[in-house]
Amino acid sequence: MTPSAPDTAMRTLMERLYPVCRSITGEGVRETLDVLREKLPALEIVSVPSGTSAYDWTVNDEWNVRAAYVADSTGRRVVDLADHTLHLVSYSVPVRATLTWDELRPHLHTLPDHPDWIPYRTSYYHRDWGFCLTQRRYDELADGRYPGPYEVVVDATLGPGVLNYGELLVPGESNEEVLVTSHVCHPSLANDNLAGIAVAVALAQRISAQLRRRWSYRFLFAPGTIGSIAWLAGNPEAPARVRHGIVLTGLGGPGPLVYKRTRRGDRRIDDVGAGVVEGRGGEVRAYSPYGYDERQFNAIGFDMPVGRLSRTPHGEYPEYHTSADDLDLVSDSRMFEALEALSEVVDILENDRLYRNLVPHGEPQLGKRGLYPSTGGRNASATVMAMLWILAYADGETSLWEIARRSEVGFPLLKESAAVLCKAGVLADEGPVEDSFR
Amino acid sequence: MTPSAPDTAMRTLMERLYPVCRSITGEGVRETLDVLREKLPALEIVSVPSGTSAYDWTVNDEWNVRAAYVADSTGRRVVDLADHTLHLVSYSVPVRATLTWDELRPHLHTLPDHPDWIPYRTSYYHRDWGFCLTQRRYDELADGRYPGPYEVVVDATLGPGVLNYGELLVPGESNEEVLVTSHVCHPSLANDNLAGIAVAVALAQRISAQLRRRWSYRFLFAPGTIGSIAWLAGNPEAPARVRHGIVLTGLGGPGPLVYKRTRRGDRRIDDVGAGVVEGRGGEVRAYSPYGYDERQFNAIGFDMPVGRLSRTPHGEYPEYHTSADDLDLVSDSRMFEALEALSEVVDILENDRLYRNLVPHGEPQLGKRGLYPSTGGRNASATVMAMLWILAYADGETSLWEIARRSEVGFPLLKESAAVLCKAGVLADEGPVEDSFR
Amino acid sequence: MTPSAPDTAMRTLMERLYPVCRSITGEGVRETLDVLREKLPALEIVSVPSGTSAYDWTVNDEWNVRAAYVADSTGRRVVDLADHTLHLVSYSVPVRATLTWDELRPHLHTLPDHPDWIPYRTSYYHRDWGFCLTQRRYDELADGRYPGPYEVVVDATLGPGVLNYGELLVPGESNEEVLVTSHVCHPSLANDNLAGIAVAVALAQRISAQLRRRWSYRFLFAPGTIGSIAWLAGNPEAPARVRHGIVLTGLGGPGPLVYKRTRRGDRRIDDVGAGVVEGRGGEVRAYSPYGYDERQFNAIGFDMPVGRLSRTPHGEYPEYHTSADDLDLVSDSRMFEALEALSEVVDILENDRLYRNLVPHGEPQLGKRGLYPSTGGRNASATVMAMLWILAYADGETSLWEIARRSEVGFPLLKESAAVLCKAGVLADEGPVEDSFR
Repeated sequence: MTPSAPDTAMRTLMERLYPVCRSITGEGVRETLDVLREKLPALEIVSVPSGTSAYDWTVNDEWNVRAAYVADSTGRRVVDLADHTLHLVSYSVPVRATLTWDELRPHLHTLPDHPDWIPYRTSYYHRDWGFCLTQRRYDELADGRYPGPYEVVVDATLGPGVLNYGELLVPGESNEEVLVTSHVCHPSLANDNLAGIAVAVALAQRISAQLRRRWSYRFLFAPGTIGSIAWLAGNPEAPARVRHGIVLTGLGGPGPLVYKRTRRGDRRIDDVGAGVVEGRGGEVRAYSPYGYDERQFNAIGFDMPVGRLSRTPHGEYPEYHTSADDLDLVSDSRMFEALEALSEVVDILENDRLYRNLVPHGEPQLGKRGLYPSTGGRNASATVMAMLWILAYADGETSLWEIARRSEVGFPLLKESAAVLCKAGVLADEGPVEDSFR
Repeated sequence: MTPSAPDTAMRTLMERLYPVCRSITGEGVRETLDVLREKLPALEIVSVPSGTSAYDWTVNDEWNVRAAYVADSTGRRVVDLADHTLHLVSYSVPVRATLTWDELRPHLHTLPDHPDWIPYRTSYYHRDWGFCLTQRRYDELADGRYPGPYEVVVDATLGPGVLNYGELLVPGESNEEVLVTSHVCHPSLANDNLAGIAVAVALAQRISAQLRRRWSYRFLFAPGTIGSIAWLAGNPEAPARVRHGIVLTGLGGPGPLVYKRTRRGDRRIDDVGAGVVEGRGGEVRAYSPYGYDERQFNAIGFDMPVGRLSRTPHGEYPEYHTSADDLDLVSDSRMFEALEALSEVVDILENDRLYRNLVPHGEPQLGKRGLYPSTGGRNASATVMAMLWILAYADGETSLWEIARRSEVGFPLLKESAAVLCKAGVLADEGPVEDSFR
Repeated sequence: MTPSAPDTAMRTLMERLYPVCRSITGEGVRETLDVLREKLPALEIVSVPSGTSAYDWTVNDEWNVRAAYVADSTGRRVVDLADHTLHLVSYSVPVRATLTWDELRPHLHTLPDHPDWIPYRTSYYHRDWGFCLTQRRYDELADGRYPGPYEVVVDATLGPGVLNYGELLVPGESNEEVLVTSHVCHPSLANDNLAGIAVAVALAQRISAQLRRRWSYRFLFAPGTIGSIAWLAGNPEAPARVRHGIVLTGLGGPGPLVYKRTRRGDRRIDDVGAGVVEGRGGEVRAYSPYGYDERQFNAIGFDMPVGRLSRTPHGEYPEYHTSADDLDLVSDSRMFEALEALSEVVDILENDRLYRNLVPHGEPQLGKRGLYPSTGGRNASATVMAMLWILAYADGETSLWEIARRSEVGFPLLKESAAVLCKAGVLADEGPVEDSFR
């Protein structure tokens, strides 16, 4: 597999999912999950009936929309869902009405600062309807270019049905799990969150292809908030099984990688996530209770060790939640870097181990084992330094990842060097790190 | 009460106290305390007889001065206490003598670098006398413009009497106390410390006006060093009663607010004082054993949790301990900001409480309780963020102030939001923080 | 003894040692140790036979060289050990051969970036031979100016003999030791490590001249790596006896002082070493497993508290391990500063004590004990501040050095002030700090 292969695959997947009119329930989510199941055949698509209790929440009625538009008095459709999935406020109730400009106006949403962009708005928990449009079109309407009265049609259904999410378990040697989640409820928004979905799929494929896995990996593709809570409510034993977790979102947009810590801030995923992201020049942030589904997993009652990986987070780039978050905003190389960073995290979670220096009285004579350059006087090579770092700290209590953090030698080189030293008989493998803290 | 009201009151009080010739004992201190009692009628004025033992110290003889001057051979008074209270070295012994220039000169103190300023000098514990004057006047004397011999008069008394301090207890629900002190022994020096006195008086009035007080508040207006030590010696049970304390000084002069930590550096007042001052762009400093009466309260034998609030501290601004520390040096708005900062500290000490999230499994659905905006897609408001921060960390062990420190949401908004959440039934008040450490 | 006296002595010693052809064994080391014994008559010179096992190592055969050169076809010696000790790769095996340019070339080492410098190369553990020369001379050979074939002579012996190191014990009240080491195996390299040797000798002389010593001091002058390991192997009880240790190297070259922490990083020598070096504007670094004999002492099996003092470390200045590390590179004043810093470290290790404030209720009245200026109003002097810091923190648990670190008052002034306060009866000496952690 060439390095550029996943790029193409991620891009292709995003292009296919971009036009779908997703929301927290309905056909759009099902269509999306069906596409994901093509890539991940073991993906299970779960249906939760509307009205199901989920802790403090109740699963919404299912929403589907066939058509939605505003037409002027001449019949011209001045705002039309068929043109862009963002044109309709998500979860708008069915409407068929003829309205004056003054009656219509309160139902219109625009972005005055970005007159060519369409905003993204939802009304999941408050029965209402509305249209989102460019400020430019709004001004044309206000100017009378498209005279009223206006025909308003929201040909939607909102009633009992189901909420769907997709779940993939990649089993490992342990029943304990690493949880990877991304939300699948946003319509035509590329960075938030087709990029997260595409990277999650690529990561799931990589992990599935591994011969051995210490941990089991659970991938969750769920609508934001209610989807995660429905999964939690339906799987009350899940939190205790999850030893490390990460929410993926906004991985193709502008800015460096950003790791957001768990609520407690000192879980193992925090140390590994922060280390990997810092190693790539990214940014590490403290927990805050706003954002994506890390809010649910980290809630006091669950207290799960779930961090978040993104680039510039929600609300901090102008295209956020607008039609400008399109396929041009996301970059293949940035998504690929995110995939590489996640692979590093997985590598560390899988392979961090304890070692013991078997020749601890002074430096072992590496030269007689063919591990040291024969001519002295020069500085040490990276390979020699990796061995020396391991020998200096391998006391059976300090893990390889802790040595990586201390030494700033990359984990892969340390892992390889540890294997060389074990083979040479100067190092003993004392087993995986017990992640005794969650 | 309009916000500017305390400014005027503080300024008026300072103007009234400025001309008084204060020292560590005598009429000046009594006159000052009498003025303070007009503002704080419950102020108790305590008298401690000269010669009273106070730990390692002995209360000084009382010093009073009617007149003090140096006159030249023509009778012109070239230095005169009647012109400025700083002209006489405080605690000068009585003198009536005719001296040559060479005999007079060793008793004169000037500031060569600031030729128009009069220095402030004292000789409390070494029987001596002296005059402080501008370098300009000194040069005129040296030049022979005012020819000698000189008549030197210090019409003072120094003998058994009393030392006075003022003490005000504003009782609260608990007998445990918050101590607020300022020194009252400096003559016509405005920032050091009429500003501290005026802010302390305004704070005492504010606290007295509150309907409920968790803590009792003790305000101490005492001469520096010996006054505090006399109070400590006369109230041996006091240290154990004081749970939080702060010394006020130099609050109207130049520079941002400066919080100086207690000797131990990690008391509750340190966390609150540092947090409030940092929140206002001020500076936080470690303890050092020089300064004001925090030296006495923090001494190993008392080990009281007493910090200090000032602006640019003693010795770091050129006007310090000179006649240039006058009423023009202090600003009403800077004193008002100090009062506001202290009110914040009091608010936190009074109202920091523990809460428990009653809906801890995922985020409570705030929308159905009318606490969340009905249209989604935008960023969260400050009010919503305050609620989310509380719900994320209200585990019954993390206090509201700790949440404020972590979130950088202001304590008042958090307090208000906690009340809203309690009323909505999603949060339980679990009582005040036990200040188990002193 | 004037301050400049040690400079001259250190310089003179370095000048005498510079021409000696040292390696890890042989006459050069013995000659060096003999010279050191002139300065330190109690120095014991230890011989360890070749072949002796020393943990993972075996003591090398002894290497001696009488002459070594390359001559061209006309008999001109184009590279000659007699000109510079760096010309021969250390531990070159005996050779007598006539070689073509192509045969000779692989045995030649140069520094293309510094065409006038000779590199320093060794081949202790791989039987080989080679010559080091300037790039300029190499180019002349390549150009045919000195035509071949070449006569190559390495008139050396490499066979059973001994390895030597020098050991000096300066006994103190305690059998527990402070270890000071420097390597003695490098030929004509001044900063690395004649400077370290010269400073160690001067420090040993200073310590020997002290009337009382709390600790015993052990000075080790040993060949790098194998010398230290041989000493450790021959003295298995040594590690437990060493409470503090420091490796000295590169003390006369460019850059500020650099303290390198022990492997654990939090030993007492780390606190003292870092504090002294920071106080002199130097740099403190974390441990890394490359460098000098701190690698051996800090190895897991010994875990000795041995830091390192240098200036710009190995490999970070261009002259490192080249003929440009000559007597001009090292400065007398920089060596003297290093000696002063080490004397400070010794002063703190010797004299850090616990004190108890006997007048802990408020500040003691220093004035009545003649310890405070009689005229008040000015800022405190350094002497007064030193006393106040001690009185503020002398609780019987906080040591004088901890007070020095906190206050930034120099340790000597604190020590002197503690004595004054003890004499005045306000402070009690509660004995030396128990170095309970190693």
